[in-house]
Amino acid sequence: MIKKDTITAIATASGTGAIAVIRLSGREAISITDKIFVSKKNKILSNQKAYTIHYGEIVDNKKIIDDVLISIFKSPHSYTGENSVEISCHGSVHIQQKILELLINKGARLAQAGEFTLRAFLNGKLDLSQAEAVADLIASSSEASHRIAVQQIRGGFSNDINKLREQLLNFISLIELELDFSDEDVEFADRSQLENLINKIENHVGKLIKSFKLGNVIKNGIPVAIIGEPNVGKSTLLNLLLNDDKAIVSDIAGTTRDAIEDVVAINGINFRFIDTAGIRETTDTIENLGIKRTYQKIENAEIVLLMLDAKDKKAKLKIDSIVEKTKDKKLILVVNKIDTIEQTTSFDKIEKLTPIYISAKYKNNTKQLIDALLDSVNYSSINKQDTIITNTRHYEALSNAQEAIFRVKDGLHTNISGDFLAQDIREIMKFLGEISGEITDNEVLGNIFKNFCIGK
Amino acid sequence: MIKKDTITAIATASGTGAIAVIRLSGREAISITDKIFVSKKNKILSNQKAYTIHYGEIVDNKKIIDDVLISIFKSPHSYTGENSVEISCHGSVHIQQKILELLINKGARLAQAGEFTLRAFLNGKLDLSQAEAVADLIASSSEASHRIAVQQIRGGFSNDINKLREQLLNFISLIELELDFSDEDVEFADRSQLENLINKIENHVGKLIKSFKLGNVIKNGIPVAIIGEPNVGKSTLLNLLLNDDKAIVSDIAGTTRDAIEDVVAINGINFRFIDTAGIRETTDTIENLGIKRTYQKIENAEIVLLMLDAKDKKAKLKIDSIVEKTKDKKLILVVNKIDTIEQTTSFDKIEKLTPIYISAKYKNNTKQLIDALLDSVNYSSINKQDTIITNTRHYEALSNAQEAIFRVKDGLHTNISGDFLAQDIREIMKFLGEISGEITDNEVLGNIFKNFCIGK
Repeated sequence: MIKKDTITAIATASGTGAIAVIRLSGREAISITDKIFVSKKNKILSNQKAYTIHYGEIVDNKKIIDDVLISIFKSPHSYTGENSVEISCHGSVHIQQKILELLINKGARLAQAGEFTLRAFLNGKLDLSQAEAVADLIASSSEASHRIAVQQIRGGFSNDINKLREQLLNFISLIELELDFSDEDVEFADRSQLENLINKIENHVGKLIKSFKLGNVIKNGIPVAIIGEPNVGKSTLLNLLLNDDKAIVSDIAGTTRDAIEDVVAINGINFRFIDTAGIRETTDTIENLGIKRTYQKIENAEIVLLMLDAKDKKAKLKIDSIVEKTKDKKLILVVNKIDTIEQTTSFDKIEKLTPIYISAKYKNNTKQLIDALLDSVNYSSINKQDTIITNTRHYEALSNAQEAIFRVKDGLHTNISGDFLAQDIREIMKFLGEISGEITDNEVLGNIFKNFCIGK
Repeated sequence: MIKKDTITAIATASGTGAIAVIRLSGREAISITDKIFVSKKNKILSNQKAYTIHYGEIVDNKKIIDDVLISIFKSPHSYTGENSVEISCHGSVHIQQKILELLINKGARLAQAGEFTLRAFLNGKLDLSQAEAVADLIASSSEASHRIAVQQIRGGFSNDINKLREQLLNFISLIELELDFSDEDVEFADRSQLENLINKIENHVGKLIKSFKLGNVIKNGIPVAIIGEPNVGKSTLLNLLLNDDKAIVSDIAGTTRDAIEDVVAINGINFRFIDTAGIRETTDTIENLGIKRTYQKIENAEIVLLMLDAKDKKAKLKIDSIVEKTKDKKLILVVNKIDTIEQTTSFDKIEKLTPIYISAKYKNNTKQLIDALLDSVNYSSINKQDTIITNTRHYEALSNAQEAIFRVKDGLHTNISGDFLAQDIREIMKFLGEISGEITDNEVLGNIFKNFCIGK
């Protein structure tokens, strides 16, 4: 699987910039660059030390293409673990393409998406979950998703899992030893110790699985549907959230989501506010289509922010049906325009929900609303730096492991024979091993890396 | 004018990439980076050698922001001539912004557009025309514009001018010496030698001025209006040019041009084909609006490609009026669809133009057409590597110099007094000096660098 050819790609964002970086990796990375590089001091790159920078020109048949800086990295002390070169050139698209072309003419091959990181994995520089975190890191658009990716790159998560796997391996050896001595009915593997370990693993895996729901919404932004009648103040509220010292993340690429009105980062977490404007609900009748569309939007939301007008007491009448329809969501009840009335008692405790009384116009009580949003996503647990799973592949591996764990526990309780027990333990190990890539296949690798950008 | 503070900016193209580069320049560039960098080997960047690379983490209050590579450059051996640092980080927009923020918090200032190159100029690393060529290089979207920019960065153009200036300076000294001895009516400055030099300068400046027309169209793409009746085969021809091994340059930023149909790079020169589709010209009458719009498009073109249908002999009737209206353009007459007729004699020599007979459909004779396009822009002179002026500021300075040259020549012929002569020579010197920035002011500098991208 490990390829020895030299790959190259433009590593910086596409388009024109002040500078751009083209990278190469592979045994011939430095010698291929030497073929198109003329140093200002007649230096041969292949003779230079690792971690040094060299100024000179990229030339094509004596025609100068650009002034560049060349950075040299040598195996194994590089990102990929291979000889590597970074060419820092002027950021014209024409120049970038031209240099890439020259490198390919001189023997390099255009890298596939994620191929640099794939090589880092194959050369043992990163485990698979760390490699995946590199892609997450590049895609991270909020502080929280960034923090989770950084943590995952540090490898704490897969280290813990690997330690548990090693302990399991011990038990398997002992159980398999028992099988060799099956006639004698001995028990080398202490079943209660094994049960302790399995419980420990179950607990750990359970926590990680539980964290996925949070991790997934952090990674993709937490969908919040704001529903309410026209003029209830939805856009005033949204503008308030947008302007109140929070960053606007305007454009998340590669998604096929519903119409997104705005993404607002609050305390480093992206909330995606889903537009439900134009869905009119009257107190008497709700048009069929209107209901349908509103509930479709609610379906995609994690949080439903139901806004009422403090003046409009009749609105109360339908809240019970909305509460019914949003049973599996976090429902936040917001009563807006408290500046227009004298008393707010009329709304106290609607369907067991404590409303948050605000005036979006005068910015009253908005802190309370923001706290409610953050509470809904377990913000405090994010800050405790618990490990949070964001990757669907990890989630599936953990879920599979969990099922195998349940089988092992059942087996221990029913005193299952050693060979069946060993088989289920091996299953746990297999699924846990998939996360860090201890156990993997080409198809899985292909799926993971095809979603990377080229140049990484 | 030389500022001592430390500036920083993202230097790579905006958006998400595999990696991004943030640069700093200024006395404190390295020490500011030290404040947010933790080396894997406990290295202090300030103690490291120039042209070395260091791996470590960017941290904010012990929170890890990213794994980075730091490149160190020391005054005067850097692009700007100052201490400089390049931080190569993961290419998430969030990370880029975060690191930039940290650098600013630790004492750097966000660089203005072109400020790195401005500093390179102020520190004597580049003259002004070379600095301008850096911007041209980054913007270059064709081989020809790229080549001209590279040549200008090499400085040949301003070197030549500076040598001529120095020789003029000699003469001025001599003439001013004469003025000191004005009572004695001596002539230290040999007038015929001076005239020789002035002629040499006139010749040189004249060539450069003449090259501007070509340079300007190369830089911006050569506008070609294809006119002809509907169904004459305009789009077939365009598709042919686009697909026939030529690169498509789809998007040139920052232009306020007319509707552009397509930019086709032929032999490294960008031709901008201007859409005149939908402008119907009948043989009998031409609608008033149609004429107006067609001729507006022609007005903006350098080259007019008039297409006729080989079958449609009546079309000939109006050609004389088009020839009349395009007197100052290159007019290329193309007779298409020669595959549909047996004889082509009927079109020979229309209004003294030799038509090019093609079949866009069957790709007949297109090489001839391409040669005609290249001839119209003096392609051969581009390849001779003559200096070509592309910059309006240079053009204006040269035109002003030319006027002063004419005054000096007049003065020599009319035996003008030495003090007037010296004054006109000083004028030449001043205008020539503006090109390389020997003579400049803050306003001019401001105008030049404000059009750069940030980070360069």
